[in-house]
Amino acid sequence: MVDPAHVARWQARIASELWDRVVPFWMEHSLDHEHGGYLNCLDRDGRPFDTKKHVWLQGRQVWMLSKLYAERGETRFLDAARLGAEFLARHAVAADGRAFFCLARDGRPIALQRKIFSECFLVMAFAEYARASGDAAYRVRALALFERVLALVADPTPLGKPRLAGQTPSVDLAVPMILLNLVAELRGAPGSATFDDRADYDSIERDAVARVLRHFDPARGMTFETVGPRGERLDSPEGRLLNPGHVVEAGWFLAEYAARIGDRGLESTAFAMMEGALDQGWDREHGGLFYFLDAEGFSPVQLEWSQKLWWPHCEALIGTLSAWRATGESRWFERFEEIADWTFAHFPDPEYGEWFGYIDRRGEVSQRFKGGPYKGCFHVPRALWRCAGLLAPDDQPPRADR
Amino acid sequence: MVDPAHVARWQARIASELWDRVVPFWMEHSLDHEHGGYLNCLDRDGRPFDTKKHVWLQGRQVWMLSKLYAERGETRFLDAARLGAEFLARHAVAADGRAFFCLARDGRPIALQRKIFSECFLVMAFAEYARASGDAAYRVRALALFERVLALVADPTPLGKPRLAGQTPSVDLAVPMILLNLVAELRGAPGSATFDDRADYDSIERDAVARVLRHFDPARGMTFETVGPRGERLDSPEGRLLNPGHVVEAGWFLAEYAARIGDRGLESTAFAMMEGALDQGWDREHGGLFYFLDAEGFSPVQLEWSQKLWWPHCEALIGTLSAWRATGESRWFERFEEIADWTFAHFPDPEYGEWFGYIDRRGEVSQRFKGGPYKGCFHVPRALWRCAGLLAPDDQPPRADR
Repeated sequence: MVDPAHVARWQARIASELWDRVVPFWMEHSLDHEHGGYLNCLDRDGRPFDTKKHVWLQGRQVWMLSKLYAERGETRFLDAARLGAEFLARHAVAADGRAFFCLARDGRPIALQRKIFSECFLVMAFAEYARASGDAAYRVRALALFERVLALVADPTPLGKPRLAGQTPSVDLAVPMILLNLVAELRGAPGSATFDDRADYDSIERDAVARVLRHFDPARGMTFETVGPRGERLDSPEGRLLNPGHVVEAGWFLAEYAARIGDRGLESTAFAMMEGALDQGWDREHGGLFYFLDAEGFSPVQLEWSQKLWWPHCEALIGTLSAWRATGESRWFERFEEIADWTFAHFPDPEYGEWFGYIDRRGEVSQRFKGGPYKGCFHVPRALWRCAGLLAPDDQPPRADR
Repeated sequence: MVDPAHVARWQARIASELWDRVVPFWMEHSLDHEHGGYLNCLDRDGRPFDTKKHVWLQGRQVWMLSKLYAERGETRFLDAARLGAEFLARHAVAADGRAFFCLARDGRPIALQRKIFSECFLVMAFAEYARASGDAAYRVRALALFERVLALVADPTPLGKPRLAGQTPSVDLAVPMILLNLVAELRGAPGSATFDDRADYDSIERDAVARVLRHFDPARGMTFETVGPRGERLDSPEGRLLNPGHVVEAGWFLAEYAARIGDRGLESTAFAMMEGALDQGWDREHGGLFYFLDAEGFSPVQLEWSQKLWWPHCEALIGTLSAWRATGESRWFERFEEIADWTFAHFPDPEYGEWFGYIDRRGEVSQRFKGGPYKGCFHVPRALWRCAGLLAPDDQPPRADR
């Protein structure tokens, strides 16, 4: 078993990183008291380098601040969450129910993606803000958007992507994975006062789990980002694409679901997916997790394939600690430490707080900004917050330690 | 003046690279005698890693092979050009006149971009193939597509990009720059048998030149990729974006036009644009040209900003030699040599021929493939072919040497 004092040192370090170095960065620099919402494109020192507001990150920040409020009960977090929730309720959803991808500082729309993720992150935002604020109108908004997401998954025609005769039918891991997460978010914590169990959640989850598993090849320990509709392997750059951070994230979503329904077999599968992705994704030469790989060893067509991004490392911290808690196997704690050592040596900014997001293959900062079109107040604080919980002595001890 | 023997050594080296190392790679590996067209996703050794056919590259390869045929008169080049031209005529244009971005190996459509560039590269392909083959039907196809491009530039609505209230009106350098190039391609070589002067070419060119110049700030020597419709600077990542390779390419397009109409002032402006871009874009630490920069020194949001791509270096070889030929100033030849030394030290593959396309900031190969969704039989052979011509002793000598 892992030395409890050692665990406690990690817990203290991670909690301090969250509350002293990361949360203050966003609370100090991102709140837009003039127009509402958040400035999410922030340079290294917190100054905005763009005033555009990206809905993925606006929604995720509302979610995160609502969670921090639930954790600490400090009204400054609820006030900050409200700043974003009200802005998004007013500006993020078009008359036809689609959610924009990007807004101007004052809320006017700039871009609409042909994807469902803006809608998804608004579901998370509104569901959690409804819980934090007690304002049921946000719950209604969350559920309406969730219905919209389900409809777009069933029939993506309104997204406007042309269907053409030469396309190979395919499905992406991202979709069932986020549906699984959204149901968990809508449901809330089992046993809590705000737990909300809708009749159809179980079947949506079962379907999402079955769809996630189609991407996993147990024989090779590989989870493919894109497969045919029945899980067929596709021999193309898309079909060979591995996204280790995504797989680890899907793994801990799946493990959490498996634990809730008490399916130990599924839990093992989730950890096997994670383990494969960490084995394949770890750069044995320079450390850190690659962003993309090709399952057959070709060069991925994504120019940024070898970069080390903050978010796969965040997911890996959560994933390895979750596996340690669930299995009690010290090898998972060792894996956590290997990843955490590399992560803490490369991503945090000792000068201005928060983490750099983009590191080159050798470990040098490639982009100095702390917030951008795809990085905001989400992966870093979510990982630190969850890891602090998983490391806390008052949490349920690891199974093998019980 | 530059030592003619030194010039001759470069000429021999570049001609050998073209005919012995680059052209054979494509002739040997890319021709799809089964379905027509070209396999353009080729691994380091020429084996395909994907069978998709990207229309930008299919069109550019038809153009290049037609040029090689014009240069050498070898029917194998004309036959290879026909393989692509017939495939594209059959498959690349939709019933509504839009050109696809990507086709399956057998020609069925896979993707349609909300951009005009597929159409543009088909104009180049069909115009040059018509000239090479004498088949006037391809000239008709080229002109019809050119009309379509002009219509889409005037009114982009059919491209299907939503216009939203928060968008900042803006224009991209890419558009007027390619129009200038397309007119030059349609016109052909002045004095040649196939020279074709249409009544409206002059006004299209004058308009395109005026539009290109709106992106240039002479005081800072900077050419901005995206500006307001009247050339206004935009304070956003898009508005601050510098793309040095693009500016150098625009520079030699512009210089060529200026030389044709005898406008020495415009020619100087073109070289000033190029010189600024080369000064700003050169990596003083590791050598090579950056892909993207932010004019105010922020980190570009493009993850690949610091990579060294083959094509900006190709454009810089053409641009610097063109400036040397036009001005006779030896500093331009020195600049050519600095770029050529770095380029030849990093991009060519000594083992299998052709050039790597993607090098990391420090000069290591980041992606091993020779052809991909955006790299094909175009920039490398075009640059080598043009540079060999600019270095040839029977070319018009540099102005200062006359």
